[in-house]
Amino acid sequence: MPTATPPHASAETLTVLGAGLVGSLLSLYLARRGHAVQVLERRPDPRREGSQEGRSINLALSDRGWRALEGVGVADDIRQVGIPMAGRVMHDAQGTLTRQPYGEAGQAIYSVNRGHLNRCLLDLAEAQPGVRLSFGQQCLRTDLKKQELHLLDTETQQARTEPYTRLFGTDGAFSAVRGALQKTDRYNYSQDYLEYGYKELTIAAGPEGAWQMEKNALHIWPRGQYLMIALPNLDGSFNCTLFFPYEGAESFAALQTPADVTTFFERVFPDAVPLMPTLTQEFFEHPTGSMVTIKCFPWKYDDDVLLIGDASHAILPFYGQGMNSGFEDCSVLNQLLDEHGDANWATVFAEFQTQRKPNADAMADLALYNFTEMRDRVGDPRFLLQKKIESRIAGQFPGRWTPLYSQVTFSHTPYAEAWAAGQTQDAIMARLMPHIHTEADFDQPAVQELVQQEMANKG
Amino acid sequence: MPTATPPHASAETLTVLGAGLVGSLLSLYLARRGHAVQVLERRPDPRREGSQEGRSINLALSDRGWRALEGVGVADDIRQVGIPMAGRVMHDAQGTLTRQPYGEAGQAIYSVNRGHLNRCLLDLAEAQPGVRLSFGQQCLRTDLKKQELHLLDTETQQARTEPYTRLFGTDGAFSAVRGALQKTDRYNYSQDYLEYGYKELTIAAGPEGAWQMEKNALHIWPRGQYLMIALPNLDGSFNCTLFFPYEGAESFAALQTPADVTTFFERVFPDAVPLMPTLTQEFFEHPTGSMVTIKCFPWKYDDDVLLIGDASHAILPFYGQGMNSGFEDCSVLNQLLDEHGDANWATVFAEFQTQRKPNADAMADLALYNFTEMRDRVGDPRFLLQKKIESRIAGQFPGRWTPLYSQVTFSHTPYAEAWAAGQTQDAIMARLMPHIHTEADFDQPAVQELVQQEMANKG
Repeated sequence: MPTATPPHASAETLTVLGAGLVGSLLSLYLARRGHAVQVLERRPDPRREGSQEGRSINLALSDRGWRALEGVGVADDIRQVGIPMAGRVMHDAQGTLTRQPYGEAGQAIYSVNRGHLNRCLLDLAEAQPGVRLSFGQQCLRTDLKKQELHLLDTETQQARTEPYTRLFGTDGAFSAVRGALQKTDRYNYSQDYLEYGYKELTIAAGPEGAWQMEKNALHIWPRGQYLMIALPNLDGSFNCTLFFPYEGAESFAALQTPADVTTFFERVFPDAVPLMPTLTQEFFEHPTGSMVTIKCFPWKYDDDVLLIGDASHAILPFYGQGMNSGFEDCSVLNQLLDEHGDANWATVFAEFQTQRKPNADAMADLALYNFTEMRDRVGDPRFLLQKKIESRIAGQFPGRWTPLYSQVTFSHTPYAEAWAAGQTQDAIMARLMPHIHTEADFDQPAVQELVQQEMANKG
Repeated sequence: MPTATPPHASAETLTVLGAGLVGSLLSLYLARRGHAVQVLERRPDPRREGSQEGRSINLALSDRGWRALEGVGVADDIRQVGIPMAGRVMHDAQGTLTRQPYGEAGQAIYSVNRGHLNRCLLDLAEAQPGVRLSFGQQCLRTDLKKQELHLLDTETQQARTEPYTRLFGTDGAFSAVRGALQKTDRYNYSQDYLEYGYKELTIAAGPEGAWQMEKNALHIWPRGQYLMIALPNLDGSFNCTLFFPYEGAESFAALQTPADVTTFFERVFPDAVPLMPTLTQEFFEHPTGSMVTIKCFPWKYDDDVLLIGDASHAILPFYGQGMNSGFEDCSVLNQLLDEHGDANWATVFAEFQTQRKPNADAMADLALYNFTEMRDRVGDPRFLLQKKIESRIAGQFPGRWTPLYSQVTFSHTPYAEAWAAGQTQDAIMARLMPHIHTEADFDQPAVQELVQQEMANKG
């Protein structure tokens, strides 16, 4: 996209509230279209020395995210600092490892550092003519009628009112902009917390920054009712996340002392414990994070305000699609602006929410679905056999069978379509698997006949 | 229950916020147990002359409501001013009538006037030693940590802070008490608006207060995508409610002028129009009401605060169970106080929400289910035949088959159990009905054999 002569320059300044991952990428998109963009962020500039990084579940960039980054030409820069993860490595309670590829050869998701990615996008946004970033700007209130933001400068503690003409709410799951929309008539809204919290822990780097486990994989310790995962970092360490019930026999509530933690981890994650020298310290110093699914509608207010990313559809982290879906929002909005023009906001906003809402809802369901898969099913040999058989079917019927994970992760198929197709395929697998006990069974004439029948019915 | 010597008198004053139907009944229950009860209500005293009645969908009292009223000995008083409705009368587009009884002979739901019922309960509460009612008390904020209510006296416009030790939020779907709970950590909450609004209209009384349609029935004009209902009043008139889409070809948006309204009503409700002399005036003067389903959890905060009625589970009006479920909350709470004692609030509150939450969720689903039934299925002869067959099965297998409507309306079976049993029975009917084309078919040996098989499997 040309950056020299903005194609749609207008007198109107667009306001983006929130300079996290989605807000900074959206600002880039809008500025590249020739708009003047004012970006307001509550937190201090994360690129300043001494700034605190918030806790965050590790990010896994997949195809939807990459396409959005490519749209503003920054994918290659980011890929330099990502670590490809080509599959899952499951760790059982005896420390035995099992591998499952995510897709075909060459396909991978990428472990990236949230802070790094955010700083990189902010640098790019700031370098773009027309973008003005302001940090430490807390939104106290959004007045939809008067089109005004009531802001507090967190450094000077000065409050002020700022008008907007077009406001994009990219301020995350607890969006202040959505807070204003929620007060409008007949607003649909839900927030639903998981009965699980998460705790971020560390697997240390080995000597000379060596990775102490397989580097190019996402590691999973599936334990039925809970799980731990680990994603590789560039420095040889892994970021681990324990997803664990708040209450119950095996829960955060049950682990009150360092001895409780050590005993529990040695029993259930025996191969990880020796690699976690700071386990008990981190366990009690790091906060326990909560996880929420947020749904709402509408996402717009007239043609003045649009919610984007987590502000309109915060989801659980288990499919690695939170950031990816927010980035896809940016690509889709950009495409709608291509189609309808940069002056036709009413149409663009209306189309955006109509198109994206069912996909956001489907993705929320998928994220919950994958929670069960990751904590429970991936530890089951029957499930892994099923994945292999699915892969065989995909190979035998090119273009007619794409595993659900691949549709979500390695395609741009709308989430709602992927989810519907995945449910159809799941039903087929549920009928086939009783006839299949080993991978070799797939080649049995009787099984092949069933497969042919199912594929004929599937159409 | 004795009123002279309160069995559980304590120094603690209980605070009930909201003196609507549920709040006034709850106050009665608590006072009868010997508690001092302070009742705070935002609106002015509805018993004062010139007070405005809010708009309201007509109420239909059924068994759960009656039992709760019996628990404080006021059922007989209320029954005097209720009109029994023994069944539905469907009006088709040609004005032809079809009848469907609600239950067995002698069973009925009762049309009651909300205002009258509320005033009656307030009188009874006020007469009870220990109850203090204050009107015009708007809750601006609830401070859960400090256990304080920030109140505004709407007459004097004086704001003040009042402490509470035990607070019951009976302040309805838009509860201020729940507003405070919603700000606590990991609070689950949803508000979901129906794409339909409602409009209250009147069928006039005939000469000398005669009812111009069958008095002891709930009248329904089912029209597939929308419907009108009418409930009898004591003065010979009927309160009608039109449930109608906000948008679309046949919708509120499409009826902009008195001529639009008249033309539309004459086409779709031809037998009602001559009985509605004030139709067009009311249509444009009465507000269009919205309908929301609200779910939340938890319903309590420590052992200090409990939500009751619509504050915790506002539902759609289509099963006539909004008030009845709120009244049942009062009976259930009373029973838990009997079991655990009046000092053991922590246990009582915890038990209450554990027991009532699944029932409230089931009732929310049932209310939506009945919307489809009332606007669409009751106009279908096949559906009415199915109801007759169900009634025959119930007669043939006493105690082993209770139609869903009867379980919800004429029993005290927990809503969740009723809903589950209803779904099982619906599945059986879906298998039987293809074999049944007239009521007489039910006696065919082949059909009887199927019925016997189904009942054997049902257990």
